[in-house]
Amino acid sequence: MQRGCSPVNHIAPVRVAAVGCGYWGPNVIRNLSEVPGFELAWVCDADPARLAPVATRYPTTRATTRIDDIFADPTVHAVYIATPVSSHYRFVKRALDFGKHVLVEKPLATTVERAEELAEIARARGLTLLVGHTFVFSPPVRKVKELIDSGMLGPIYYVETTRVNLGLFQKDVSVLWDLGPHDVSILNYWLNEVPTHVSARGRSYVGEALEDVAFLTLEYPSGILAQLQISWLAPSKLRRTSIVGRQKMIVYDDLEPVEKVKIYDRGVDRQPASFGEFQLTYRSGDILSPRLDTTEPLRIECEHFLECIRTGRTPDASPQSGVDVVRVIHAAERSLRTGGSPQPVYEPVAAMEPTP
Amino acid sequence: MQRGCSPVNHIAPVRVAAVGCGYWGPNVIRNLSEVPGFELAWVCDADPARLAPVATRYPTTRATTRIDDIFADPTVHAVYIATPVSSHYRFVKRALDFGKHVLVEKPLATTVERAEELAEIARARGLTLLVGHTFVFSPPVRKVKELIDSGMLGPIYYVETTRVNLGLFQKDVSVLWDLGPHDVSILNYWLNEVPTHVSARGRSYVGEALEDVAFLTLEYPSGILAQLQISWLAPSKLRRTSIVGRQKMIVYDDLEPVEKVKIYDRGVDRQPASFGEFQLTYRSGDILSPRLDTTEPLRIECEHFLECIRTGRTPDASPQSGVDVVRVIHAAERSLRTGGSPQPVYEPVAAMEPTP
Amino acid sequence: MQRGCSPVNHIAPVRVAAVGCGYWGPNVIRNLSEVPGFELAWVCDADPARLAPVATRYPTTRATTRIDDIFADPTVHAVYIATPVSSHYRFVKRALDFGKHVLVEKPLATTVERAEELAEIARARGLTLLVGHTFVFSPPVRKVKELIDSGMLGPIYYVETTRVNLGLFQKDVSVLWDLGPHDVSILNYWLNEVPTHVSARGRSYVGEALEDVAFLTLEYPSGILAQLQISWLAPSKLRRTSIVGRQKMIVYDDLEPVEKVKIYDRGVDRQPASFGEFQLTYRSGDILSPRLDTTEPLRIECEHFLECIRTGRTPDASPQSGVDVVRVIHAAERSLRTGGSPQPVYEPVAAMEPTP
Amino acid sequence: MQRGCSPVNHIAPVRVAAVGCGYWGPNVIRNLSEVPGFELAWVCDADPARLAPVATRYPTTRATTRIDDIFADPTVHAVYIATPVSSHYRFVKRALDFGKHVLVEKPLATTVERAEELAEIARARGLTLLVGHTFVFSPPVRKVKELIDSGMLGPIYYVETTRVNLGLFQKDVSVLWDLGPHDVSILNYWLNEVPTHVSARGRSYVGEALEDVAFLTLEYPSGILAQLQISWLAPSKLRRTSIVGRQKMIVYDDLEPVEKVKIYDRGVDRQPASFGEFQLTYRSGDILSPRLDTTEPLRIECEHFLECIRTGRTPDASPQSGVDVVRVIHAAERSLRTGGSPQPVYEPVAAMEPTP
Repeated sequence: MQRGCSPVNHIAPVRVAAVGCGYWGPNVIRNLSEVPGFELAWVCDADPARLAPVATRYPTTRATTRIDDIFADPTVHAVYIATPVSSHYRFVKRALDFGKHVLVEKPLATTVERAEELAEIARARGLTLLVGHTFVFSPPVRKVKELIDSGMLGPIYYVETTRVNLGLFQKDVSVLWDLGPHDVSILNYWLNEVPTHVSARGRSYVGEALEDVAFLTLEYPSGILAQLQISWLAPSKLRRTSIVGRQKMIVYDDLEPVEKVKIYDRGVDRQPASFGEFQLTYRSGDILSPRLDTTEPLRIECEHFLECIRTGRTPDASPQSGVDVVRVIHAAERSLRTGGSPQPVYEPVAAMEPTP
Repeated sequence: MQRGCSPVNHIAPVRVAAVGCGYWGPNVIRNLSEVPGFELAWVCDADPARLAPVATRYPTTRATTRIDDIFADPTVHAVYIATPVSSHYRFVKRALDFGKHVLVEKPLATTVERAEELAEIARARGLTLLVGHTFVFSPPVRKVKELIDSGMLGPIYYVETTRVNLGLFQKDVSVLWDLGPHDVSILNYWLNEVPTHVSARGRSYVGEALEDVAFLTLEYPSGILAQLQISWLAPSKLRRTSIVGRQKMIVYDDLEPVEKVKIYDRGVDRQPASFGEFQLTYRSGDILSPRLDTTEPLRIECEHFLECIRTGRTPDASPQSGVDVVRVIHAAERSLRTGGSPQPVYEPVAAMEPTP
Repeated sequence: MQRGCSPVNHIAPVRVAAVGCGYWGPNVIRNLSEVPGFELAWVCDADPARLAPVATRYPTTRATTRIDDIFADPTVHAVYIATPVSSHYRFVKRALDFGKHVLVEKPLATTVERAEELAEIARARGLTLLVGHTFVFSPPVRKVKELIDSGMLGPIYYVETTRVNLGLFQKDVSVLWDLGPHDVSILNYWLNEVPTHVSARGRSYVGEALEDVAFLTLEYPSGILAQLQISWLAPSKLRRTSIVGRQKMIVYDDLEPVEKVKIYDRGVDRQPASFGEFQLTYRSGDILSPRLDTTEPLRIECEHFLECIRTGRTPDASPQSGVDVVRVIHAAERSLRTGGSPQPVYEPVAAMEPTP
Repeated sequence: MQRGCSPVNHIAPVRVAAVGCGYWGPNVIRNLSEVPGFELAWVCDADPARLAPVATRYPTTRATTRIDDIFADPTVHAVYIATPVSSHYRFVKRALDFGKHVLVEKPLATTVERAEELAEIARARGLTLLVGHTFVFSPPVRKVKELIDSGMLGPIYYVETTRVNLGLFQKDVSVLWDLGPHDVSILNYWLNEVPTHVSARGRSYVGEALEDVAFLTLEYPSGILAQLQISWLAPSKLRRTSIVGRQKMIVYDDLEPVEKVKIYDRGVDRQPASFGEFQLTYRSGDILSPRLDTTEPLRIECEHFLECIRTGRTPDASPQSGVDVVRVIHAAERSLRTGGSPQPVYEPVAAMEPTP
């Protein structure tokens, strides 16, 4: 290890530095400061006006506007990066080069090549690289994963998801890059596979060029079809996903205050009738809304980061999952540019141009 | 007029015959029997078992299992046809040939050529041909039409609609042909245009070959994008449409007991900032749920049929609208067969094979 | 048996006559005509205009405007009575005197004495007298009864119920007499006891003298408190009941299309702490919405009537339950007249004046 | 002014001290620290463990465990008190004696006499005494007040309100004292009057003696009836109020994410028919959900406190309103103890014993 840092051990706290104190960063910083086992060593933002309020909140943490102070500090084991998307590649690469474990906000990078390069560096250096696909750490999403893995749904037919509201939150990227990674990361995590083809339609109604509405279709190797609706132009906020299996169906509605996950004992029984004919029976049974853990997802994410650093286990939001998400979003972009025709996720990477 | 029937006048009632007493027909028959101005002259079904209960309910109406009895009766002015889809063309053609006005359940026919032929015959003979796109006559759909026509939404950006439930209701057609015509007829009616291109993805999960789930994208000449989800495999029934305009947005939820239509005073203001840049402001104002007429849609449809017969006006669910719906569904089918690529609605008709 | 009728046997159908073809009667008549085992012998209404459409619908049933035709027909085993409330006593008494089994709409009578007299006659003559407390036969109410009887709720603390909408449906009685019997009959059925005391507050806002809004408190011998809200003056229709037990809680919302009954695995655990102190823990577990039978309640009611006639078993909506409901409503009226002070249900009957 | 403090002027900030850093206090302290015009001078809690985290958050504010430090500081103009209910009287009295303006959490005091004494002192010394009836400062409650004051509802018939959830939040008081003041303060504020009589039923199911469920009926001089349901033992959280007027009706549901207030254009028209008879018509028109300010209620409360201090205007949550709430809760308690009989709010105060 040319440039490295003090090794992590199981007794001393893991010293973590946070870079980026804008809209989202402080939420994660608060959790890093509260998870036992982490010690918030540094907070950093190039803009002193954004840095100041965060620095005040953590009086025993050092504050800086220069990210190099952090890389240069050998006592820092881990870095959290919440800077603009375009800088992810550069900062993650440097952090890994300096031997730091990294938690970076999604997307991992803006091109597939760069995302793959970062994943490869982390692998080679044995460092934890966790991509902030926050929903993968939210209790309802994890409960749905548990239900799918139990096999109780039977074969899954299709998934349909809606993530819409009024108002954009990131000015420099399209709705595809802003909201798309959430659903793609959730779906890949649940289904434990990566789509082979993606088609997408979208429109730039309000802005100049960046889509504010998009509809995506994802085809998974197992035959599962997933349909996504993402929009910044919707009358009311919706966060609703249906997972349709042969035995049971699930609705996950993140805006429900209590019953976020509902399991419908519904399905279709296909019974042989006569001479190769089948008779269909629709089953309609109980509806169960399981109790959910109420821990904050960011808390679970930070604890997971700590556990991965300490044990070396592959994170649930692994570098490879970060690469996969970037690949899917890029395939969707190619489909958008070609009028909606389906695009392979893993094939003609050469044809792909680096889009912001 | 070689073969014809007694002319309709404004004093005597319009004598109407009903063909098809299965699942749906009796609902329309009841309305035909109740609308003042109609006289229910005949009820007909090839199956005596289906005919009997309906015949009993209307003791003064003649009953027959032979449709020709109706065509042969010169006192019959109008025929209502609710037979299996594959027989629509044949029965509508004969009814028109005999000079009868026709109300036929959707779809008008199974091929574009046949639908166009029927429309042409009705036009040539000056007969009313109304296609039973029932939703076009439902108070919430008509209220939304009125709101759109008033211009209060500003330019419409996109429409998104979900029509799903558990269980199929027609065994001989796909979900595309069963549920699709509802949304396509509503959208064409609202927007007063016909899509140029359609793309569709779908799956036959349960049955052998017929799709039970489909996702459609419709592109309208004005640039409006419409996304449709139709499914017989869904955990809960949903009937929800969002219409997103620059000034206002509408949500139409047909399952809401009272507030079926909601107008959101929401939109995006795009104001010039500096040097060709724009600043976006999201407006969030009142939400209004207008009072709706509670008349049964079938009652309005039957009254509209009577009015068109008497005045000769073109129905809201005109033969041309019936042709357009068949064209769109066929384009969607071609897209399904070609893996989801967008298909023109009005172009290469030659390439289209007659699908059931 | 001086005046009697042909005995009921298990092979021949039970011949039933229906008296009262107004707003509600025809719904029950339809079910009487459809339940195998019943034969709809007569329909009757003093008003020929109300009688005619019903008579037409059942061409093989005899129709009359004179109720005595029915009493005089010895082949009639049972009579259904849906006449104005003030005539219940007279017609039920005569029917029982003629040896007919009776299904009468609620309330059984307008005074406690008369209700008790009818119950006594039915008992003495061994005739079925079923009071049309329809909700007692609705699948969600029966499911809740089943859950309560299973003991899974633990001791029940209290019940709260809301039955409100805009618009009155009966012109000659107060909201107390119109909507009150529904909730009182449901509660007595569920809890298997009769309240000891009732207090009530109400107002006559719109009409001259009859209350259109009332709030009732029922105290049951077991200590259970029930609070009822009934109103004809409410912005939106609500039909919602909460049953709060120590182990579990139930919400029954009759307006929910599917999830009418929800079982909350919630409660309070009271654990000894120190020196006679207790520590409270609130449990929050799964929520289960059981599948419900979708049979029409009136169908179940009519089948139950038939079964009681044939077997002699005491109906779920027994004469005594009819008496109890009348007693509770009268106690509520006394409380209303005395400014809301609690009134005993079974005590000073002498002080009670016969109110309509 | 024997003991006083520096006068407030319109240029220098108002120096405010906060006493009580438990569960609720820190929320108000944050707002006091953020409202321009206030300067958070002191934070105080007798328990150093509760004081420490708050003290850390406001490094430039002085911290103390002794409340007398605050009273003794003549530069402190105002005190915020969030101590246990039993200490309100003592601390408010001392603060007023030292010439400080006071914001105290509800209830103002535990007895009517003490509440009246505090109100009198504040009046005599010309000091602002604001009772923390927070809901009076919440945008939906203020919007409803505005609608009522506009007269658009017509005469108000009755109000019905439900405030229930699972779990108690204050261990030393009953649900009557914990949740009751919220609804009573809202109702008195809306209706601009104080009830003349109160009746109440309740139960102590879980605890030893303190009610965890209560139903209250309030009678206002204008004839308006208000029914309140408050409970710590409910399957799901509900915060719902209906206000029923002759011309319009309002539903205020505090748990709705967006449409917290809905105005129903519904009512009853009573038209003369013949000979003193009336015919009732039920009107059912549009439903409007007005846009609401999204400012945090505590922010509005703190700004209002500042404005009252500076201008001397009587607060919306005035000392008298605090007295009225205490009177109503005491009358409800007397009714609880006497089995539910209605109790006067302003009469036999002598009979009232000081309850916690």
